Amino acid sequence: MTEPADPLVVFTPSGKRGRVAAGTPVLEAARQLGVDLDSVCGGRGICARCQVTPVFGHFAKHGITCDETTLSDRNATEARYTEKRGLAPGRRLGCQARILGNVVIDVPAESQLHRQVIRKAADARPATMDPALRLCLLEVAPPDMHAPSGDLERLMEALRAQWGIADASVDPGVFAQLQKTLRAGDWTVTAALHRASAEAPPLLTALWPGLLEGDLYGLAIDLGSTTIAAHLVSLRGGEVVASSGVMNPQIRFGEDLMSRISYAMMTPGGAAEMTGAVRAALNGLVAELAASADVCTDRILDMTIVGNPVMHHLLLGLDPVELGQAPFALATASARDLPARDLGLGALPSGAQVYLLPLIAGHVGADAAAVALAEAPELSDDLVLIVDVGTNAELLLGNRGRVLACSSPTGPAFEGAQISSGQRAAPGAIEAIRIDPATKEPRFRVIGCPLWSDEPGFAAATARTGVTGLCGSGIIEAVAEMRLAGLLDAGGLIGSAQQTGTARMRAEGRTHAYLIHDGSASGGPIVSVTQADIRAIQLAKAALYAGARLLMDEMGVDAVDRVVLAGAFGAHVSPQHALVLGMIPDVPVIRVSSAGNAAGTGARIALCSLAARRRIEREVRRITKVETALEPRFQEHFVAASAIPHATAAFARLRRNLPLPEPSFNTEGSRRRRR
Amino acid sequence: MTEPADPLVVFTPSGKRGRVAAGTPVLEAARQLGVDLDSVCGGRGICARCQVTPVFGHFAKHGITCDETTLSDRNATEARYTEKRGLAPGRRLGCQARILGNVVIDVPAESQLHRQVIRKAADARPATMDPALRLCLLEVAPPDMHAPSGDLERLMEALRAQWGIADASVDPGVFAQLQKTLRAGDWTVTAALHRASAEAPPLLTALWPGLLEGDLYGLAIDLGSTTIAAHLVSLRGGEVVASSGVMNPQIRFGEDLMSRISYAMMTPGGAAEMTGAVRAALNGLVAELAASADVCTDRILDMTIVGNPVMHHLLLGLDPVELGQAPFALATASARDLPARDLGLGALPSGAQVYLLPLIAGHVGADAAAVALAEAPELSDDLVLIVDVGTNAELLLGNRGRVLACSSPTGPAFEGAQISSGQRAAPGAIEAIRIDPATKEPRFRVIGCPLWSDEPGFAAATARTGVTGLCGSGIIEAVAEMRLAGLLDAGGLIGSAQQTGTARMRAEGRTHAYLIHDGSASGGPIVSVTQADIRAIQLAKAALYAGARLLMDEMGVDAVDRVVLAGAFGAHVSPQHALVLGMIPDVPVIRVSSAGNAAGTGARIALCSLAARRRIEREVRRITKVETALEPRFQEHFVAASAIPHATAAFARLRRNLPLPEPSFNTEGSRRRRR
Repeated sequence: MTEPADPLVVFTPSGKRGRVAAGTPVLEAARQLGVDLDSVCGGRGICARCQVTPVFGHFAKHGITCDETTLSDRNATEARYTEKRGLAPGRRLGCQARILGNVVIDVPAESQLHRQVIRKAADARPATMDPALRLCLLEVAPPDMHAPSGDLERLMEALRAQWGIADASVDPGVFAQLQKTLRAGDWTVTAALHRASAEAPPLLTALWPGLLEGDLYGLAIDLGSTTIAAHLVSLRGGEVVASSGVMNPQIRFGEDLMSRISYAMMTPGGAAEMTGAVRAALNGLVAELAASADVCTDRILDMTIVGNPVMHHLLLGLDPVELGQAPFALATASARDLPARDLGLGALPSGAQVYLLPLIAGHVGADAAAVALAEAPELSDDLVLIVDVGTNAELLLGNRGRVLACSSPTGPAFEGAQISSGQRAAPGAIEAIRIDPATKEPRFRVIGCPLWSDEPGFAAATARTGVTGLCGSGIIEAVAEMRLAGLLDAGGLIGSAQQTGTARMRAEGRTHAYLIHDGSASGGPIVSVTQADIRAIQLAKAALYAGARLLMDEMGVDAVDRVVLAGAFGAHVSPQHALVLGMIPDVPVIRVSSAGNAAGTGARIALCSLAARRRIEREVRRITKVETALEPRFQEHFVAASAIPHATAAFARLRRNLPLPEPSFNTEGSRRRRR
Repeated sequence: MTEPADPLVVFTPSGKRGRVAAGTPVLEAARQLGVDLDSVCGGRGICARCQVTPVFGHFAKHGITCDETTLSDRNATEARYTEKRGLAPGRRLGCQARILGNVVIDVPAESQLHRQVIRKAADARPATMDPALRLCLLEVAPPDMHAPSGDLERLMEALRAQWGIADASVDPGVFAQLQKTLRAGDWTVTAALHRASAEAPPLLTALWPGLLEGDLYGLAIDLGSTTIAAHLVSLRGGEVVASSGVMNPQIRFGEDLMSRISYAMMTPGGAAEMTGAVRAALNGLVAELAASADVCTDRILDMTIVGNPVMHHLLLGLDPVELGQAPFALATASARDLPARDLGLGALPSGAQVYLLPLIAGHVGADAAAVALAEAPELSDDLVLIVDVGTNAELLLGNRGRVLACSSPTGPAFEGAQISSGQRAAPGAIEAIRIDPATKEPRFRVIGCPLWSDEPGFAAATARTGVTGLCGSGIIEAVAEMRLAGLLDAGGLIGSAQQTGTARMRAEGRTHAYLIHDGSASGGPIVSVTQADIRAIQLAKAALYAGARLLMDEMGVDAVDRVVLAGAFGAHVSPQHALVLGMIPDVPVIRVSSAGNAAGTGARIALCSLAARRRIEREVRRITKVETALEPRFQEHFVAASAIPHATAAFARLRRNLPLPEPSFNTEGSRRRRR
């Protein structure tokens, strides 16, 4: 009252500033000025989430001079915390240190609830932590016989009085543990509150006695037809603390989506069987990730899941049969919040919640939505084609003006399935190959060994794994290299030993196969590329290209500015070889980039941010869906795209940089036609 | 437009009136004027819930003359309905008949959604139907590949567009059946919407293909320590269509509440075992009631449950141990809405919801709240004592000014347990008895036979059942009659054969027993009242009276105006005998009434009305709780009330009408004291 004016406080890095009454704790000042300063204990000086660094000196820009007297000395609470738990030099507890004069206060990143996290080095866009969960310490009144009320009611009253939250509800599992937890914590407990949206009433999803130290965690799941990838993520800092991937156990019911739909249609209880299988796999992943990160599962309280519509429906226990036929009616397309227990995820605590990203259309799922969330085509200045290659390919084409999406049934050939020497990416699999255009001799690299096969020491280095087959990127490169070396014509026919001049060509009936590696002398397999393999790759890549071409038709363009290859496959395929094969439209090689597992990244972004969930829900409504199965031009595009690289598109840029030989091995065909 | 004014429409019995545009359908006019007119099909002319009776003639009071031209002729829809399903003479479909001129329209009771139902003849207070559930017919858009959206989203859109409901959510079980049901109904379905309160967003809890005919049902459950009573109630008319009662299977873990709490405390998993037992019993009741009323369980979508705090906690899966010791902390006291599946009630459909009435205090439960809802002491002009006698007695004392409540541990003696010849009320049990004061000879009636035992034909009429024991009301009357006949002194001692002058007195060690019936000649039991029986009844009735007296202390009164005996027991006990025994304070016999199973009635009222749920939630907060176990005066009241009728209270009114002999049989005691 005797001071001329209330002290001025400036928070960095936000730059927020204002005057507060002398004696106001820093935490309270932050709240008054809208500065993001974390606190779990609500100002009791025990959680230390509100640590700040007062900055002393003269700040011309703020017009402030501050010294050590502008904050109160350490009080008993702060001294006790410092002694017991330690506080870094210069740091103060925001809830205990009181503002006595003008001061500049820095809020370090780890004290911000909504801190910005850089997702990865290659990606400049920062993401802001805005998770669905927060922790609150509560001091609950003990029971009083003369004013009888329930434990739950007194807990709710504490939440209202201490945190201003009056509309919370309680998960039934938490409710059952309430009495025990309150007494174990001597009426002090830490509550985890989950909000499905900023406006939604919070749900109390977990309760611990006393103050909970450490972080909460969430799981981001990319539920693919073939692989289920999972990341365990800290909901405080957003960092991945463990990752894992397992085969989707539904594979035993059918390799691709259509065969799983058929299984559901033909087998009574088949859909339920597949639902049970995938849920069991998710429970296994929870346990595995928790163990590998040494995180107690009771802290894993949120989960986001992306997947194509069939995976999405089977996970939810919905019959996928409608997705097998026009009009490809989804049971639901919206984003969905639900308790993990409604998905049979018993490995998670009772209160754990799940967010399913929205679907785009009957064939374009939440995986594509997640790719859109990660890659944000709607923010791109140039026209970008994003291709997420899996058993199904999801394609997005767009820029700031408009975004289109479709799905194309490439089948599992790109993952090494349906290929005679194909195999999953594992040590021993050929992942890269080059064929000398002169000698037609191959050299290759296998997963697990950095050496090329013609380098010294390769045999020794691969003795343990052997050379076992071709993984997805290996088969792509093999086919492209065969085309570049003149072993394969534009129509996809493999030439004979005579036509190609190499003894590596072996006749198989009326067709030929190119021998890459003969391990039979040491009991290993023969790795070769057969005519049937070429046909499988042609079908897959033609489907992919035709989908992209349909989107280009809809957009009214004949070229795109850049291509992003997403998916685990996209991370390993060589852009050059993808272009030679004609998988993607003709763009400069340097404008083809890999986004890694963009669907998984999208799931992770949604896990860390409610704002991101709202953003993708908004975006999917704006995306124009193109239904490949019904577009009459799809068939035409597909046939033209079967040629390598293409029957009608020029691929002029590619050919300028990399002249393609143009043999024709179709002697039998021409002979036949002559009859 | 050419008419001078819009037509005037008057609805009866509501009296609501107003002008509507000529051509407005009656249903629409009712909506505009706020008249309660039911409709499930939303005006499509197929559910016929909106039937009305136009009234023709001159109505001086309304200033209206109407004839048959004031409503439109039957259109094709109405004619088709009339032909196919029949329409009573004079009735019209409100959604099809259009208002052309001034008209008086009567809405019959069965066309009112919120109809008034008279609960029972003796009770003048009408109740208004206001259930949590309503039915809505929905015409859902079929899927369109060119505007892809989910079945769920199109259903929600229909709900918004056709019923103005934009905030509904969907039960997960309904969600799983959605695709099938929509297709089975050819995109027309009937939805059941449940609202926990008038303001709460509705939950879609069931879905049927096409139009659902007939009613929805709910279950009102009175979950007693000894008996579980259940009523199956139509949620349209409020009538009970089937009732049943079963023993509470928790009895095998302990007869009274304290022994069940002990079981939970001493036995690992004991609480869960008892939870499982009661849930299984409820599932059995669902199946039994559905079968007996020939109602498909998929229509049983709501349930209300009342019970004492221990029953309530065990049902919810909460540990009752805290209720066994001061401060008798409830885990939760609030009313609770939850899905039936969260209570393991798998016999009900997935979407079925449960409402648990609020608890009043640690020993005064939702059963007492239900009694308060049924008997409304807060609306009573005179001071009423309401006694719900079960294994525990719940007592309410109050009037418009204030309501008090307590619970008293009477034990199961009043139910015939712990009595040597005691048995449950069943054919063969003595339910009424009179003892001749001169001859000391008894005559009695047994359940299942209207004759007294001294009437001709009694032996033949009871040959099948025999005379098997004393039920609750039988033991009460037997003890009171023994007191009236001078066989028992005020201290509760039974006289010897010599002291009482009847050979029916038999010595049993140092005490005596009064023989009521000797069936041993025909292989039946000997029915008698022993000294131990008298002691058990004394303990029970003293606890009951002491509870009432504590409430009177708290209220600052020495008398009450009237007594209501609730509970199954209350329905059968004779007020006269209850007064002789001193179970209740001394009021005129005529001011003792029976409310039957008031707790069950309260559950039924809550089942039929959301407004009643809000009312009792409000009332329980206003009730003052008295904790008998901690009031120092309880023990004093208890000791004084052990005498029959009472050691210190005069019971002057009783004695004026019915002089009580005052023998004293305590010769041994006086002898002992003399030593």
